[in-house]
Amino acid sequence: MIAEIAALDFAVPPAVQTAEQLAPLIGRSPEWIETNAGVSKRHCCHGYQDDPAKFVAELAKPIIDEHGKPDLVLHAGAMTRQLIPDTSVFVARELGLKAVPAFTVNATCLSALAAMQTANALIATEQYHRVLICVSEFGTPGRNFKEPESAALIGDAAAVILLQASQRDAGLQHYAMATWPEGAELAEVRGGGVHCPPHVASAADNLFHMQGENLLRFVLPRLVKFLKQFCSDAGISLDELDLVVPHQASAAGLKILERLGIPDDKTVKIIADYGNCGAASIPMALSIAEQQSRIRSGDQILLLGTAAGVSIGAALLKW
Amino acid sequence: MIAEIAALDFAVPPAVQTAEQLAPLIGRSPEWIETNAGVSKRHCCHGYQDDPAKFVAELAKPIIDEHGKPDLVLHAGAMTRQLIPDTSVFVARELGLKAVPAFTVNATCLSALAAMQTANALIATEQYHRVLICVSEFGTPGRNFKEPESAALIGDAAAVILLQASQRDAGLQHYAMATWPEGAELAEVRGGGVHCPPHVASAADNLFHMQGENLLRFVLPRLVKFLKQFCSDAGISLDELDLVVPHQASAAGLKILERLGIPDDKTVKIIADYGNCGAASIPMALSIAEQQSRIRSGDQILLLGTAAGVSIGAALLKW
Repeated sequence: MIAEIAALDFAVPPAVQTAEQLAPLIGRSPEWIETNAGVSKRHCCHGYQDDPAKFVAELAKPIIDEHGKPDLVLHAGAMTRQLIPDTSVFVARELGLKAVPAFTVNATCLSALAAMQTANALIATEQYHRVLICVSEFGTPGRNFKEPESAALIGDAAAVILLQASQRDAGLQHYAMATWPEGAELAEVRGGGVHCPPHVASAADNLFHMQGENLLRFVLPRLVKFLKQFCSDAGISLDELDLVVPHQASAAGLKILERLGIPDDKTVKIIADYGNCGAASIPMALSIAEQQSRIRSGDQILLLGTAAGVSIGAALLKW
Repeated sequence: MIAEIAALDFAVPPAVQTAEQLAPLIGRSPEWIETNAGVSKRHCCHGYQDDPAKFVAELAKPIIDEHGKPDLVLHAGAMTRQLIPDTSVFVARELGLKAVPAFTVNATCLSALAAMQTANALIATEQYHRVLICVSEFGTPGRNFKEPESAALIGDAAAVILLQASQRDAGLQHYAMATWPEGAELAEVRGGGVHCPPHVASAADNLFHMQGENLLRFVLPRLVKFLKQFCSDAGISLDELDLVVPHQASAAGLKILERLGIPDDKTVKIIADYGNCGAASIPMALSIAEQQSRIRSGDQILLLGTAAGVSIGAALLKW
């Protein structure tokens, strides 16, 4: 048995920040932002007072009303509402759930994929029937304006995926992930943990730091090899894919896909309007493709992403 | 197919803090600490400069040498080395692993159980064969000395569980978890996330806060009902259990077990020597029971715990 997506949706905070508005904050021109990051605008939460659990729960409520109560809530992402309890608890609270298990899966930007793999295995082994995956990434308050390259990329968004046992031959067909920890410093927030705690951390330690070019150079050869192995293991060629939904890491990152032989018209790109929304990017891009009627029943869809770590992950989804 | 424990170990930092040493820091007598918390001594990391990933990796190294490289690394716990990447990456780095997937499962003090359930499902669905679960909880720097009740409880420890497909009728037989998010404030660290970030948080916001008596009152009726349902679903009675390995929440929490009908000689209690070591407590207590030859092949073992949330979780393990 495999799990398929019963419902999918995304949301962004109402406030928009254009390249023109961001430009003076990071000391670059709007053109530089649009060319380098590939982001014309991003949505931003109002600041730290916003509650990412409440935000994603609002998105999940109509889905639960339609499909019924989940028997597991997974929060997927690196960003938390607070340290303890984990964010899944606060999502469950906003949803009014009682006695439904809740925990968090964190693989940074690949969290939604790791949560889908986890939920799929738990459904396949008949431990749960309906798993609600909630992603709520409020990354903009963690932007380092002194690091224009990464600050130009980040946007805020939430996404919800409801996975349930498939009654037909659809759902998660194949999954793979690989982590190369020698790249751990290429994208990081040094603070927020035991190693560099609040009373020791500088302001910059609590902000996102990325070595963009080094990261790209690190990822490229590994991604080529990973994707080749993935397609071989999944028994599918790139030609047979109907759609590729990549993590919206950066404009340069998305350009890699063409070099890998994935035609541009098969790739979902939303970075210009939303930026890199962390773990929300992949489910959000999938949701937008669905809303734009780019997906038909039976389509073979590749979800593909990278994450701080450095990790690469992919899932083959039959719609 | 189910997964069984192929290897299990724990470690504590060398530095010991006795009730006598802690007493003046929290304004209580050593007798008060031993009676109320039930903790005579706890081990403490040297402070924030210690690296929880390095600490648990040292514990995992000989296990990998003996059993071979894992094909998945799961970090289990609420405490992180840093915010991004997640802690599993740093454990993998210390172990010299390359291209092995790594992510984190966080259900606070039930993280090791949630990771075991996750790993079991991933092994049962043949996605991985050998999963290394690493727990490294350095909670003592997060003690609030102005809150003697919780400060007297916390200790530091790490634990490692290697799960692999069982060639015999052993391993994880049944699992259940439930979360009651209306109890979210009964045990929490308000800081460390988007809602109360470093530049806004007071020192106390970044420390552990617990409403001990309210928490006990909250847990008791739910635990009675949960355990009854668990035994019914698992098809086992309390009498048939050979050993109960509880989370070492507090002396008062452990006393509940007797009221539930679990005889004292079947319960593993290590809180007096180590305190409450968060997600490490259950695997650590199991490891100690094994080292003390309290477990024989074929034994039916109940792992049972509570977590901030409030969550209750249990696993039935056949040795």
